[in-house]
Amino acid sequence: MTKNFDDLIKKLSEVEKKKVAVAVAQDDEVLMAVKAAKERQIADSILVGDEDLIKPIAEKIGMNISDYEIVDVKDNIEAARTAVKLVHDGKADMYMKGLIDTKDFLRSVLDKEVGLRTGRPLSHVCVFEIEGVDHLLFLTDVAFVPYPTLEDKANIIRNTVEICEACGVENPKVAPLAAVEVVNPKMPETVEADELKNMNERGEIERCIVDGPLSMDLATCPEAARHKGATGRKIVGDADVLLFPDIHAGNILYKGLVHFSKSINGNLITGTAAPVILTSRSDSFEVKVNSLALGALVADSLKKNR
Amino acid sequence: MTKNFDDLIKKLSEVEKKKVAVAVAQDDEVLMAVKAAKERQIADSILVGDEDLIKPIAEKIGMNISDYEIVDVKDNIEAARTAVKLVHDGKADMYMKGLIDTKDFLRSVLDKEVGLRTGRPLSHVCVFEIEGVDHLLFLTDVAFVPYPTLEDKANIIRNTVEICEACGVENPKVAPLAAVEVVNPKMPETVEADELKNMNERGEIERCIVDGPLSMDLATCPEAARHKGATGRKIVGDADVLLFPDIHAGNILYKGLVHFSKSINGNLITGTAAPVILTSRSDSFEVKVNSLALGALVADSLKKNR
Repeated sequence: MTKNFDDLIKKLSEVEKKKVAVAVAQDDEVLMAVKAAKERQIADSILVGDEDLIKPIAEKIGMNISDYEIVDVKDNIEAARTAVKLVHDGKADMYMKGLIDTKDFLRSVLDKEVGLRTGRPLSHVCVFEIEGVDHLLFLTDVAFVPYPTLEDKANIIRNTVEICEACGVENPKVAPLAAVEVVNPKMPETVEADELKNMNERGEIERCIVDGPLSMDLATCPEAARHKGATGRKIVGDADVLLFPDIHAGNILYKGLVHFSKSINGNLITGTAAPVILTSRSDSFEVKVNSLALGALVADSLKKNR
Repeated sequence: MTKNFDDLIKKLSEVEKKKVAVAVAQDDEVLMAVKAAKERQIADSILVGDEDLIKPIAEKIGMNISDYEIVDVKDNIEAARTAVKLVHDGKADMYMKGLIDTKDFLRSVLDKEVGLRTGRPLSHVCVFEIEGVDHLLFLTDVAFVPYPTLEDKANIIRNTVEICEACGVENPKVAPLAAVEVVNPKMPETVEADELKNMNERGEIERCIVDGPLSMDLATCPEAARHKGATGRKIVGDADVLLFPDIHAGNILYKGLVHFSKSINGNLITGTAAPVILTSRSDSFEVKVNSLALGALVADSLKKNR
């Protein structure tokens, strides 16, 4: 089983080297991550953007530019279309945002001709390695889907199960979280969590075990779960996937973990034909590199299952 | 300024000793906390409940029962009424739940004759001391009010400001949290956060500084706030009070902090005429003792301001 990001990166040495296409690559932080990804054998890259701006940054950060393929496109929108088409056409394996507005970047992801649509809605997964937790935690959705409906939540689970499997986590345990662990008709989140469990039992959400509603401690802390006497449950503090009722709950916990726990993370946009890396400027260097490693593994898994 | 629970307990040595009335005191964990509170000079207690059940527990945990006032009431509902009346009549300073259903306990708190109603709605505050944070964090509401309206949120802030002041935190900075820090009409939580800020500026919420919407990192992490360029904001990673959009967001973060950060906490029900301590079985011994310390300080502050 893959327990941490070191394991994920080790796994990459066993598979064919992957390549990331970067949209509007003239971004120093993104180039630093891409450089580290090459040095650590995580992924190669194709830098799409303004060559006149990319080269000085490369020089500044000690990046040997002759090791990288550059596609010179000055216009940002055109650079994104060019980069995503490389992934669409199979010339690159994953797609990463550079110095371009998130809205424009996502428009290229969803482009009907050259984009990475699958028909499934997009969602976001953030993978955490936390000190004291013996396995990876997959948080979803903390950044992309604001108020998921029941159907959205089912799709978010399906998207996330693919990522778990790529990370070597088979049949992941999925916890739809709430403040409480009992169904309360006055709390729609608990009713939907129960319904997701039922959908899983009826085979409508496959390749995972869904058990909810669960409070955060029953989902993630075995001692707390035992203390509360969580009998007859499928998840007893050993959830792999934490599914949030909405983006506020997810985002607040996500940032709480980043700032108040000893942890590292990486994240991806999912539901796409190939992994999409959309890190923000506030993400650390390590988060960006981890996200590239995650993307490379998922790209490999998607290729094998095609 | 009071920075941690040690400071809070030290502050108690400067004020008149307080007394807690325990409803249905035959609960070993509650008695252990009450015993520690006495030993650490935090508070004395009046144990209301079944004496025949209290005494053997006291003996088991090495509690010298002659140091404690016992009021022998066998029936739970009657014991709660008796205990809350002691607080109502000023014979005790705060009220604590023992081995009684939460529902029955709260009914006694809200009893029109002998209870602790103030006209304001009740809410819950959880006070955190977190390693690496140089001040106390007041989380509300993570346990009591499921879906606060705008008016509820204003009252929750008012309730919480009282607790901050009792802890020596004057003019606390209050952050209504959301996934994002900009007002987005599609996210009612952000609109309400903005409105709370406006109410504060208009003097409708007093003795505090409200600034929202804020993401968790802008509210609690000065570096992240500076990195994101949070200019012109009243809160730059230095919030005292974290106001959650709903109980799910609050409870999930609260339990995340308990299990994944180095922290300790204590909690109270607020909006009552005297502090009410409603810890759960899953709360640790230290949480119960911290909650008693918090209650004693708040009781002292309420008395002085009356």
